[in-house]
Amino acid sequence: MTEQRYKERQQKRKNKVDETVSSAQIERGLLLVITGNGKGKSTSGFGTVARAIGHGQKAAVVQFIKGTWECGERNLLESHGVEFAVMATGFTWDTQDREADILAAEKAWSDAKRMLADPGLDLVLLDELTYMLSYKYLGLEEVLQTIANRPAEMSVVVTGRGAHPLLIEMADTVSEVKSVKHALNAGLKARKGIDW
Amino acid sequence: MTEQRYKERQQKRKNKVDETVSSAQIERGLLLVITGNGKGKSTSGFGTVARAIGHGQKAAVVQFIKGTWECGERNLLESHGVEFAVMATGFTWDTQDREADILAAEKAWSDAKRMLADPGLDLVLLDELTYMLSYKYLGLEEVLQTIANRPAEMSVVVTGRGAHPLLIEMADTVSEVKSVKHALNAGLKARKGIDW
Repeated sequence: MTEQRYKERQQKRKNKVDETVSSAQIERGLLLVITGNGKGKSTSGFGTVARAIGHGQKAAVVQFIKGTWECGERNLLESHGVEFAVMATGFTWDTQDREADILAAEKAWSDAKRMLADPGLDLVLLDELTYMLSYKYLGLEEVLQTIANRPAEMSVVVTGRGAHPLLIEMADTVSEVKSVKHALNAGLKARKGIDW
Repeated sequence: MTEQRYKERQQKRKNKVDETVSSAQIERGLLLVITGNGKGKSTSGFGTVARAIGHGQKAAVVQFIKGTWECGERNLLESHGVEFAVMATGFTWDTQDREADILAAEKAWSDAKRMLADPGLDLVLLDELTYMLSYKYLGLEEVLQTIANRPAEMSVVVTGRGAHPLLIEMADTVSEVKSVKHALNAGLKARKGIDW
């Protein structure tokens, strides 16, 4: 490619980006949904919390499902004042007790409701919330309304596979993480610092 | 669903997960590639760094492209001893100077090479590396070989759109983040703590 063509291509890219950015003028908290069957959804959610904390913002986390493992990101973020509310039953397929699962989900949801009403929080991460809806542990309407009624400046990140269509419709940004391949299926053991 | 069917379904899920986990016995550092056009790739990479740091591991980051913005995650992670090497030219479509872009890429890559040879590091994040390959700022073979020759216990995360097929082939875990929708396209302004 000639230097001239390179400059033209880059200028075109820049114009397109500038145009999109300058036409985006609405300012309010965002609802982000990170769904799909690939690795990196929760990690992305926790990365967003790290980003907010790094700016001196306030964030809180509810972990649905993943409660019983020690998690590196929790160690780090709690040391920076991030409140973690954890549904401590672990992966639900470990419990096989629907009543207990529902009770645990409702308890975690009561923490989420408190956080979603707190104007002092800039960001709330509802990690793996989607499963609570697909398993019908929590009521869809109640969850959607609570998120919709949050303080206007608060952003919310929801992660988990199979996000409900109405949650996707309500969201501002939705990413679907597809699994192209996963180390576990090639016989590679899960690793501290990578997988938990 | 009856309680009995619920238990059976959960047991089946548990068996499948247990089987995959117990058959994965190879232990070494992993290469993760997070690609695709959706939001959350870099965020997931930085989430992985936060996770590793939270376990007391050592990590380092090279940021290709995104160099001139203040980033929340950088503030936080640098305060925990994570080295950041940054390609300070900003988005390449801002510079429109191929020679300068290549020089900046090579400089950032020399930091990456040093990190990828350092047995004291558990994790190296090569944020937005994919563009250096698709723009041919860096040589594909050189990059792949350097990653392949890293210390056996070191994990590497590569992020960016359009990952090269040979990088995907070499990787242990690959996730493709697809954009379902993005707030910017609905006129919502990029936000501190979410977008940077």
